Amino acid sequence: MFKKDLKVYAAFLILLFVSFSSYAAQDPLPSWNEGPIKQKLIQFVNEVTDKNSSHYVVPEDRVATFDNDGTMWVEQPLYTQYIFALDRVAKMAPQHPEWKTEQPFASVLAKDYSKLSEQDFEKIFITTQTGMSVEDYKSLAQQWLQVAENTRFQKHYTQLVYLPMLEAMNYLRQNNFRVYIVSGGGQDFIRSFAPQIYQVPLENIIGAAIHTQYTYKNDQPQLIKIPKVVIIDDKSGKPEGINLFIGKKPIIAFGNSDGDRQMLEWTQSNGGEHLMLLVHHDDAAREYAYGAQSKIGTFSDSLMTEANTKGWQVISMKNDWKTIFSFEHAGN
Amino acid sequence: MFKKDLKVYAAFLILLFVSFSSYAAQDPLPSWNEGPIKQKLIQFVNEVTDKNSSHYVVPEDRVATFDNDGTMWVEQPLYTQYIFALDRVAKMAPQHPEWKTEQPFASVLAKDYSKLSEQDFEKIFITTQTGMSVEDYKSLAQQWLQVAENTRFQKHYTQLVYLPMLEAMNYLRQNNFRVYIVSGGGQDFIRSFAPQIYQVPLENIIGAAIHTQYTYKNDQPQLIKIPKVVIIDDKSGKPEGINLFIGKKPIIAFGNSDGDRQMLEWTQSNGGEHLMLLVHHDDAAREYAYGAQSKIGTFSDSLMTEANTKGWQVISMKNDWKTIFSFEHAGN
Repeated sequence: MFKKDLKVYAAFLILLFVSFSSYAAQDPLPSWNEGPIKQKLIQFVNEVTDKNSSHYVVPEDRVATFDNDGTMWVEQPLYTQYIFALDRVAKMAPQHPEWKTEQPFASVLAKDYSKLSEQDFEKIFITTQTGMSVEDYKSLAQQWLQVAENTRFQKHYTQLVYLPMLEAMNYLRQNNFRVYIVSGGGQDFIRSFAPQIYQVPLENIIGAAIHTQYTYKNDQPQLIKIPKVVIIDDKSGKPEGINLFIGKKPIIAFGNSDGDRQMLEWTQSNGGEHLMLLVHHDDAAREYAYGAQSKIGTFSDSLMTEANTKGWQVISMKNDWKTIFSFEHAGN
Repeated sequence: MFKKDLKVYAAFLILLFVSFSSYAAQDPLPSWNEGPIKQKLIQFVNEVTDKNSSHYVVPEDRVATFDNDGTMWVEQPLYTQYIFALDRVAKMAPQHPEWKTEQPFASVLAKDYSKLSEQDFEKIFITTQTGMSVEDYKSLAQQWLQVAENTRFQKHYTQLVYLPMLEAMNYLRQNNFRVYIVSGGGQDFIRSFAPQIYQVPLENIIGAAIHTQYTYKNDQPQLIKIPKVVIIDDKSGKPEGINLFIGKKPIIAFGNSDGDRQMLEWTQSNGGEHLMLLVHHDDAAREYAYGAQSKIGTFSDSLMTEANTKGWQVISMKNDWKTIFSFEHAGN
């Protein structure tokens, strides 16, 4: 009886081994075209996970950081969180008849977004994304993400996630990397979808954050979002956020714009193994083509120069990605 | 040959199982006296980890938060980080001859600490703990902790950690809890010793934090600590810090003072399983006895009332802890 159990155990072990071997033999990055970037990524992972390699990195130091807008999902023609804020204005308008004549709300209601300044957006954000509990905010964001659609692709925003980046995240996790989002976008907004869509847990989501106020409602404590900045997690705020939340430097970092420059520099300064990558949007047919001239996701010439000088990998969406969106596989 | 390998595997499996069974049979909290608190803690862990229990909690929701000063280590007669700051003033004094007459430094140098106000300490903190890189700060703290001694116990401060709390942390980790420090003390100060002393990784250390400035030194980026608050992680700042760093409510929380009240309320409001505990310093012989009247680690009468009303467990150091410090075992 006992001996039989052992045989079952042994069979199980073989099965496990065979599954693993066949798994490892599979391409971990099927949506990436063969080429130097894919090769570099796989070589890096192989080396830092190989105990016999001089490039070996212990699992606790395998920190991977990913920017969100433009790196993980579409950021054109406007950041998704901005569109959410604009839609909130329309939704809240019936309770605010004064907005018909009050700027910037009047322009938003007239769908005349072109003249909105940074200050206008700040006002819109304060009005639409503060003064409620963190939980209520996340519910609103989740409800909106379930129905709102991007006009060009006619897809939900969470369907506009780049499949090659999801594969890169999974590949790193399978190799015992801790995967973080490090975004200039709002932490609570990203937390409303990233655990489900990216499999990144709440505590690994670093983003722009505002303070909360501890209050009671029906004797239960709640945190109310208030318009006072904790951290702006963009540009030099990215290393600052990484230090605050993680306390150590990444060994691999993915970005796509000038906002990620300091995160990549920070990664490269870790004194050990590192790989820095930038997604370049050069595929107008399948997604968008933009760079130095774009206000959203600026990829300046000086960033390109720094990338070339410092050996940062520039991912061409056009050439390096076989598939961009998972819905392409459904034949849409 | 292959069959032999299988037998080896099987033998290994049995060994593993036997070791585990014998391990589980051991007391996970040997420094705790038998009694209702120890029983409650073990019962809680048994229930939330038992898949067949209606109290089962999935591992990703097993969040445990621990206050630091007075909960993990001695906080009397003054918080350790304060003593570090005062010692820094003495160390820096030769470069600041003007301090001989300038307050609050003159008082510090005369070891006349009794009149130092909150504002004085703020000035001392800004002078001694900002204007340097995060790495340099941590090195200074580590060097100091290696040599500085508590005058009463004549031990290094990291030797004044409560053994029963280390056991509680280990016990929770062994049961797949994620253990966090949530402290009103400085995040960088705690990060300088907690990974080694508590086995809590850097990213699980939540504390009071100040901003950093991204600059370059010899072409390498560095973060310089600047006197601008990110978050004050005390009182209502604790739920705020927990939300910012973890994004979900704890299921078990340990504190020892009025500064932990909101963290315990926040834990209790999680809508599921929860256990809230407060260390009460009532052992003048082995440690200290203090409570409502103490400026450091105030345990007010209203906190005691809230604890009794809401079923928070009050740990008596005198009665619930068999051993307080690990050096007691060495016969010191």
